Amino acid sequence: MPDKLNNTAIILMHCPDKQGIVAKITEFLDNNNGNIIYLEQHVDHQEKIFFMRVQWELDKFLIPREKIADFFGTQIAAKYNMSWRIYFPDEPPRMAIFVSKFSHCLYDILARVHSGEWNVEVPLIISNHNDLKNVAEKFSIPFHCFPVNNSNKADVEEKELALLKKHNINFIVLARYMQIVSDKIINDYPNRIINIHHSFLPAFPGAKPYHSAYERGVKIIGATSHYVTTELDAGPIIEQDVSRISHTDSIEKIIRKGKDLEKIVLSRAVLLHLQRRTLVYNNRTIVFG
Amino acid sequence: MPDKLNNTAIILMHCPDKQGIVAKITEFLDNNNGNIIYLEQHVDHQEKIFFMRVQWELDKFLIPREKIADFFGTQIAAKYNMSWRIYFPDEPPRMAIFVSKFSHCLYDILARVHSGEWNVEVPLIISNHNDLKNVAEKFSIPFHCFPVNNSNKADVEEKELALLKKHNINFIVLARYMQIVSDKIINDYPNRIINIHHSFLPAFPGAKPYHSAYERGVKIIGATSHYVTTELDAGPIIEQDVSRISHTDSIEKIIRKGKDLEKIVLSRAVLLHLQRRTLVYNNRTIVFG
Amino acid sequence: MPDKLNNTAIILMHCPDKQGIVAKITEFLDNNNGNIIYLEQHVDHQEKIFFMRVQWELDKFLIPREKIADFFGTQIAAKYNMSWRIYFPDEPPRMAIFVSKFSHCLYDILARVHSGEWNVEVPLIISNHNDLKNVAEKFSIPFHCFPVNNSNKADVEEKELALLKKHNINFIVLARYMQIVSDKIINDYPNRIINIHHSFLPAFPGAKPYHSAYERGVKIIGATSHYVTTELDAGPIIEQDVSRISHTDSIEKIIRKGKDLEKIVLSRAVLLHLQRRTLVYNNRTIVFG
Amino acid sequence: MPDKLNNTAIILMHCPDKQGIVAKITEFLDNNNGNIIYLEQHVDHQEKIFFMRVQWELDKFLIPREKIADFFGTQIAAKYNMSWRIYFPDEPPRMAIFVSKFSHCLYDILARVHSGEWNVEVPLIISNHNDLKNVAEKFSIPFHCFPVNNSNKADVEEKELALLKKHNINFIVLARYMQIVSDKIINDYPNRIINIHHSFLPAFPGAKPYHSAYERGVKIIGATSHYVTTELDAGPIIEQDVSRISHTDSIEKIIRKGKDLEKIVLSRAVLLHLQRRTLVYNNRTIVFG
Repeated sequence: MPDKLNNTAIILMHCPDKQGIVAKITEFLDNNNGNIIYLEQHVDHQEKIFFMRVQWELDKFLIPREKIADFFGTQIAAKYNMSWRIYFPDEPPRMAIFVSKFSHCLYDILARVHSGEWNVEVPLIISNHNDLKNVAEKFSIPFHCFPVNNSNKADVEEKELALLKKHNINFIVLARYMQIVSDKIINDYPNRIINIHHSFLPAFPGAKPYHSAYERGVKIIGATSHYVTTELDAGPIIEQDVSRISHTDSIEKIIRKGKDLEKIVLSRAVLLHLQRRTLVYNNRTIVFG
Repeated sequence: MPDKLNNTAIILMHCPDKQGIVAKITEFLDNNNGNIIYLEQHVDHQEKIFFMRVQWELDKFLIPREKIADFFGTQIAAKYNMSWRIYFPDEPPRMAIFVSKFSHCLYDILARVHSGEWNVEVPLIISNHNDLKNVAEKFSIPFHCFPVNNSNKADVEEKELALLKKHNINFIVLARYMQIVSDKIINDYPNRIINIHHSFLPAFPGAKPYHSAYERGVKIIGATSHYVTTELDAGPIIEQDVSRISHTDSIEKIIRKGKDLEKIVLSRAVLLHLQRRTLVYNNRTIVFG
Repeated sequence: MPDKLNNTAIILMHCPDKQGIVAKITEFLDNNNGNIIYLEQHVDHQEKIFFMRVQWELDKFLIPREKIADFFGTQIAAKYNMSWRIYFPDEPPRMAIFVSKFSHCLYDILARVHSGEWNVEVPLIISNHNDLKNVAEKFSIPFHCFPVNNSNKADVEEKELALLKKHNINFIVLARYMQIVSDKIINDYPNRIINIHHSFLPAFPGAKPYHSAYERGVKIIGATSHYVTTELDAGPIIEQDVSRISHTDSIEKIIRKGKDLEKIVLSRAVLLHLQRRTLVYNNRTIVFG
Repeated sequence: MPDKLNNTAIILMHCPDKQGIVAKITEFLDNNNGNIIYLEQHVDHQEKIFFMRVQWELDKFLIPREKIADFFGTQIAAKYNMSWRIYFPDEPPRMAIFVSKFSHCLYDILARVHSGEWNVEVPLIISNHNDLKNVAEKFSIPFHCFPVNNSNKADVEEKELALLKKHNINFIVLARYMQIVSDKIINDYPNRIINIHHSFLPAFPGAKPYHSAYERGVKIIGATSHYVTTELDAGPIIEQDVSRISHTDSIEKIIRKGKDLEKIVLSRAVLLHLQRRTLVYNNRTIVFG
C-alpha cells in the first residue's frame, strides 16, 4: 500500500490566521501521544487564512477514534473558529461514476480500482446511455442507465439522487458525463463532485473545446479537473495538464491526444480527493502534496 | 553557425492543394542543379491548402540569386496561384525592439544577439519610458524614447514609423511593450510584429493576466508569442509554453515564474521568424520544424 | 477514424542522399495518378542519408495494389539503393502482447483496442505468470501462460515462437514483461518488438530503476519505449516522457507516478509503430510526425 | 519585493525524528512572540529524519537578533541533536561566479541581479579565459582572469581561494565553468558550490553530453543543477528540467535548445539556495517550496 493507511487519522482544516495555531494543534496531538506522520500547512497571507492537513498514528493515541472529533472540536477547533473535517484512511470512501459514451476515463478509473491502486469502493455507475454497460460488466459493477430528455430530467435526477443516498455515496466522478448536473445534486455534494473538462480552463469552457482550440491555432492543449459548482466549468480547479500540438494535428489527432490528458488528469484529481489532500476556499483549491 | 546559412535560398509558399505540386517544385530545383537541404510540406486537408518550406544550395544553382524570384515566379508560382516569398539566410534581417519598463525579455534578446546566437541586426530600440536606456547602452544599441500620452499618440507613432523606415526595419519585436500598437503600424508590418503576452491565450487576454490566473486558481500558467493583428491578443500564435504553479505561489511568485516563461517563449518565436519557419494562414501559423 | 486509412499506401524508405530524390519519387507517384496526402522527408546531413515517408491515395492510382512493390522497386528503389517497405493502412497489423504481473500497461492497450482507437488485431497475450489471465478474459483475448524457469527457458521460447508464427504476428509489445527476450525471438522480429523501460534511458538501465532514481535524488523521473535489440535497454528509442518528483515522494509514490508515465509512453510508441511513422537507422529512430 | 525579507529569520534544520518536535519548536517561537509566516516540514520515514524550514517575524520577537542562535541552540537544538542554521533574509549573501567561454548563464544571472530580481551581492567573477570580461564590464563587476594550465593549477586555486576569503564569499556559482574545481575549494564550501551540468543526470555525466545524447538517440534532453562534491557530476541535485528533441535536431540545434535549459535550471537552483530553501542529507536535497 503506497501510504500508511491503517489506524491513522487525518484532519483537514482552515481558520483565520493567528499566531501560535500550529503550536496549539501539534501540542494537542503530542500531549495525547499522537505521532504526526505528515503535516502540511499554508497561510494565505492575502486573505489571512490558515490551512492545515495533519495525519497521525492512532496506535498509542489516548483518545479513542470515535471521540476524537468531540475532543478536538471542543478543545481546539471552537477556539480558533475552524472549518474542519476528520477522516480515517482505513475507512475507504464510496464513489459513484457518471459516464456517457466515451470509455477512456472509465477504463482508466476501473483499472486502478480493480488493481488495488486506489483505496475506494465503487458501488455503482450511472449513465444516460447504454454504450458503456459492457465496460461496467467487465468489472462487475452495477450499471444504471437513465436516458435523459427534456421532459424527464427532473424525474431522472430524483431517481439518481435516491440511488446515491441508498448506496451511501460520498463523492461523484463525472468521467466525461455529457450532461449538466442539476443544482440539486451539486448542492447535496458540495466540493464532492469531480469533473474533467477537455480544455485548459478558463480557455474554451462549454461545448467542443478541441474544435475551438483548433480554430484558435493554439500550440498547446489542456485538460482541467475541477469540483463542480452551479456555474458551468467555473468550479475550483484541482489539477490541470497540457500537451503540445502543432499545425500537423488535425482535430481528430487533437481529440486523441486530449483523451490521454483527460484520463490522467481526472485520475490524479480523484486520487488527491481520495487521499484527502484538497481543501476549497474562495473557489480555489489548496492541494497538499 | 547552427544551420547552413551561406549561399542558400529559402522559399516559403502556400497555394490551393493539387496533385503533383511537390513533384513540380522539386523538379524545378533539381533541373537547375539546386541541391535541397531542407524540405517540409503540409497539407491542410480541411481547407485544401498546400504549404511548403524548401531550402537549397546556391553553389551550383544555374539561376543567379537575383533572378530566382523571376524564374520561379514565372514558371511555377503563377501556375499554381501561389503566395510565396524568397529569402537568403546570409542576408540577415533587421529587427526593431519595443520595450517599456521590464528588462527580462530585452536582456534575453540582446544576450543572444551579442553572443552571435542569432543572425540578425538590431539598429534600434524604441520605448515609451527611459527605464531601460541603460540596458541598451550596455549593448551599444541606439535607444529612442518617445513618452506617449493621450494627446501625442498619433504624432509619436508617425515619428516611430519614420524611424523604422529610415532604418529599413524588416520586423518588430514587442518585448513587454506596454502600449497598444496602432493599426497604422500593424498594417505596415503584417505578420511582422511579434508580441509576448503573459498568459496562455486565449485564457486571460488583456491587462493583468497573472492576477486573473491567481484569482481563478489555475494550476498552470503560460505565455504566448503571437503576430500582432488589429484585434488585441488575438493574432496568430507562434509559440506557447507553460509552468506549473500551486496554492503556495503568491502573485509575486507567479509573476517571477512567468517572466522566465515570457523571455524563453518570445525568444523561441523570434528565432522561428528569423529562420523563416513560420507561415500564416487563416489567423493560424504553420511552424516548420 | 482519425486518419484516412482506406485505399491508401505508405512507403517508408531510406537511402544514400543524392540530389533530386524527392523529385523522382514524387514524379513517379504523380505520373501514375497517385495523390500524395502526407509526405515527410529528412536528411541526416552527418551520415548523408535520405529518409522519407509518403502516403498517397490508391483510388485513381494506375498501378494495382499488388504490383506497386514490383513497379516502385524496379523503377525507383533499385536506382537509389533504397531500403524500403510498403504498407496498406486498411490491412491492420497483428500484435502480440507479452505481460507478467503489472496490469496498467495491458489495460491501457486493451482499452484502446477495444474502443476502436487503434487499427490493430490482437490474437493473443503471452505471459510467464497467470496473474493477468482475468484481464485478458475481460477482453476475450486468448491468454497463453508459460511459466519460465532456468531449465525450460529455451523450450518455452520455442513454443512461444511457434505460437507467434501460427498467428501471423507482425510485431510484439512487451507491456512490462519481466523476462529478457531471447536473441532468437529478437532476430526474428528486428525492430518489431517494442518495450517499455521504467526510466529515462540511458539513466538507470536494468532492474529497479525507480529505486535507483530515489537513491540518486533526481527531481524528474522518466519512461522510455524502445525497439528491443540483443543489448539490454540499449535499442533505438521511440518515445520518452518525464514526470516531476520531489523529496516528498517516497519510492511507492514514485512507482505510482511512474506507472502513469509507462502506460502513456508505451501506448504512444505502439501507435507510432502502428501508423508506420518509425524508421530505424544506426540504432536511432526517425519518427515522422 | 516577492517575499517578505525585512526583519524576519529563517531556521533550516534536521535531526532524528521524534514525537512532538514540531510542537516544541513552534511553542518556542510562539512563547517568544514570533509570528510564523512560512513553515514546512518533512519526515524521511525510511531514514527516520525530521527536516524543517521555518520563517518568522522579528518585529515583536522577544529575543534580539544576535541572541537567537544562543537561545534556540541551548533550549531546543541541543535537546533534539539538531543540525541547523539561522539566516536573516535582510542580510543578502555574497556570491562569486566562475565562468569560462559561454555567456548565456552569466547573462541570465547578471540580468536578474541587476534588475533587482535577486537579493544577493556579486563582488567578483572569476574565469580561466578572458572571453567574458566584456560581459562583466557591462555590469561593472570586477573580473579576475586566471589562465589555468597543468603546471600552475594548484597555485591558481590558492589565489582564487584567497580572493574568495578576502571578499567574504558565501557561495559560488559555476556558470558553465569548464574546469574541475579542486577538493580544497569544495571542502571549504560544502554544499555551497552550485554547478550546472548540461545533461539529465545521471545520464551523460562528464564531457560532451549533448554529443552523447545525440548518439544515443534520446527524445528528450535535460540540464541538472547540483551542489558540487568531490565526485564529478555526482553531487546532490537541486533542480532539473528537460526539453523535447527529435530526429530533426542536429547537434548544433540540441546545443542551442540545451543552453536555454541550462540557464533557467541554474538560475532556479541559485534562487532556491538564495532563499534558503535547500537542505542536503545523504547526498540528496530537500527543497522546500
